[in-house]
Amino acid sequence: MRRIAPTAAASRLDAFIERERVRVDEALASAAAEIVSPVGGALRAPLEYALSTSGKRLRPILFLSAYRAVAAPSDVDPSPTVYRLACAAEIVHTYSLVHDDLPSMDDDDLRRGRATVHRVHGVAPAMLAGAALLPIAMELIVRESRALGFPPERGALLVRELCRAAGADGMVGGQLLDLEAERRVVDETMLEAIHRAKTGALLTASLRLGAIAGDAPEPALEALTHYGEALGLAFQIADDILDVTGDAASLGKEAGRDRELRKASYPSLYGLAGAQSLARRAANEAKQALGELRSPVLLALADYVVERRS
Amino acid sequence: MRRIAPTAAASRLDAFIERERVRVDEALASAAAEIVSPVGGALRAPLEYALSTSGKRLRPILFLSAYRAVAAPSDVDPSPTVYRLACAAEIVHTYSLVHDDLPSMDDDDLRRGRATVHRVHGVAPAMLAGAALLPIAMELIVRESRALGFPPERGALLVRELCRAAGADGMVGGQLLDLEAERRVVDETMLEAIHRAKTGALLTASLRLGAIAGDAPEPALEALTHYGEALGLAFQIADDILDVTGDAASLGKEAGRDRELRKASYPSLYGLAGAQSLARRAANEAKQALGELRSPVLLALADYVVERRS
Repeated sequence: MRRIAPTAAASRLDAFIERERVRVDEALASAAAEIVSPVGGALRAPLEYALSTSGKRLRPILFLSAYRAVAAPSDVDPSPTVYRLACAAEIVHTYSLVHDDLPSMDDDDLRRGRATVHRVHGVAPAMLAGAALLPIAMELIVRESRALGFPPERGALLVRELCRAAGADGMVGGQLLDLEAERRVVDETMLEAIHRAKTGALLTASLRLGAIAGDAPEPALEALTHYGEALGLAFQIADDILDVTGDAASLGKEAGRDRELRKASYPSLYGLAGAQSLARRAANEAKQALGELRSPVLLALADYVVERRS
Repeated sequence: MRRIAPTAAASRLDAFIERERVRVDEALASAAAEIVSPVGGALRAPLEYALSTSGKRLRPILFLSAYRAVAAPSDVDPSPTVYRLACAAEIVHTYSLVHDDLPSMDDDDLRRGRATVHRVHGVAPAMLAGAALLPIAMELIVRESRALGFPPERGALLVRELCRAAGADGMVGGQLLDLEAERRVVDETMLEAIHRAKTGALLTASLRLGAIAGDAPEPALEALTHYGEALGLAFQIADDILDVTGDAASLGKEAGRDRELRKASYPSLYGLAGAQSLARRAANEAKQALGELRSPVLLALADYVVERRS
């Protein structure tokens, strides 16, 4: 096998992800300008601060890749409105970061390379700005679904999907599991349950939202769901590994926090080499789950989440 | 004027409100059983605790009264599904109570006659259970709108209405205004802005949700919006008065908290008699706003909110 092929493919993916990220950033800024800028009072500043950080934008990129994988060939280049719709997942993710960083949660000072929202704007404004981000994401879904002329049932499906991912059996429930785990011995089953809820639910939902927006048939939706579950696991194992091997400058957040908070992690349970091999296995499982769904980008993203440096 | 007439009307209203409250409690229990009981993990207990308190259920009662005021004469007795839909407003209200009581907010020990959620279940579980209540309310709207066979646009309108009431320009924004007001001199304009957002937005939204569910024509929706704004003001002034004149046993929460937290209130700005006269004036304005909309219950509720003892 020639070494040039994967390298060229990897650099094409890097360039693609970079272009997507720029378009997602533009869409997020445009959504924020429409929905957040008119907000009166003291919440606007922490909201704009929270939404203006840079980020990998993995969730909207997954949304858009799923959308492209199922949409008609004529729609391989989604409109700016679809990009704004994809930002709903990023806004919910941002809400979770703002709340996770709070002193009563993980108590972090640094996020995405900048001071956390509560360090700049205070605890109560950060908590309330976080709380305001969920209805902002929901309103964005309703608004962009209408702008896209979606049949209204599809809008309802999108709202329900995001509610479930953000709710008690998803992100919010996972955060509580994670906090509880700090006070007990955590085995592999428990660790997987935490991450499936805390991170996996929204990653999978991002793919499902894109697939629903693209009016995917049921088998494609199922394939993307399985892909998302395996990808979420790979992503989280890689995150745990980066917490050990990375540094604050490239991570944009404090490294070594898992050990400091005595959190169970894949490296602490399986060792570094064991965790790396698990991440690779999960990425391969994600790729296999795609089955008939031809999507070079989703295939490449499965490698990307385990090979990334931040 | 004979004294017996208003008394008889008042006692009929009391009996009506009591019947409504019982039916709302049943609907809330049934919605919680469907949506909260399947929740896995440690969030179920604080969620069930938060939703099982008793309450005035003013928001669902406003929803149902608006629904009755605009619905076809054949639908004067809404189905249990409509009652469950009405509970979405109560669930969002419950979320706000759970968060407002947190130590980083108003730091209260007692709510609706019981220990607050964080006193029983801990700060992080209370915070996360509160956060989970909003997507639960949204999912309830999507689910019951479908069960009622609403055209899907109506479901989208309902979701958007609740998002706005719960968001940065509504409840959550109002809470931040309220916290900030503790550290400055608050005049009447500021006090009204706080309450319009913190309490008024959800009370008005409850009426608008009921009206939208009942497919109200635009003039009726506008009349109910104005009624809600004036009713919200009357309600809040009465709440401030009760904080001075009431006791913990009948209020179900600590009395005298406004003074303790040095919060500006209508009695502190206008004196007790001045506040009582303002509350009465707002209630009358609410009644006038109803205009052509014949609703004995909404007329009577305007008096009820200023004359209540808890």
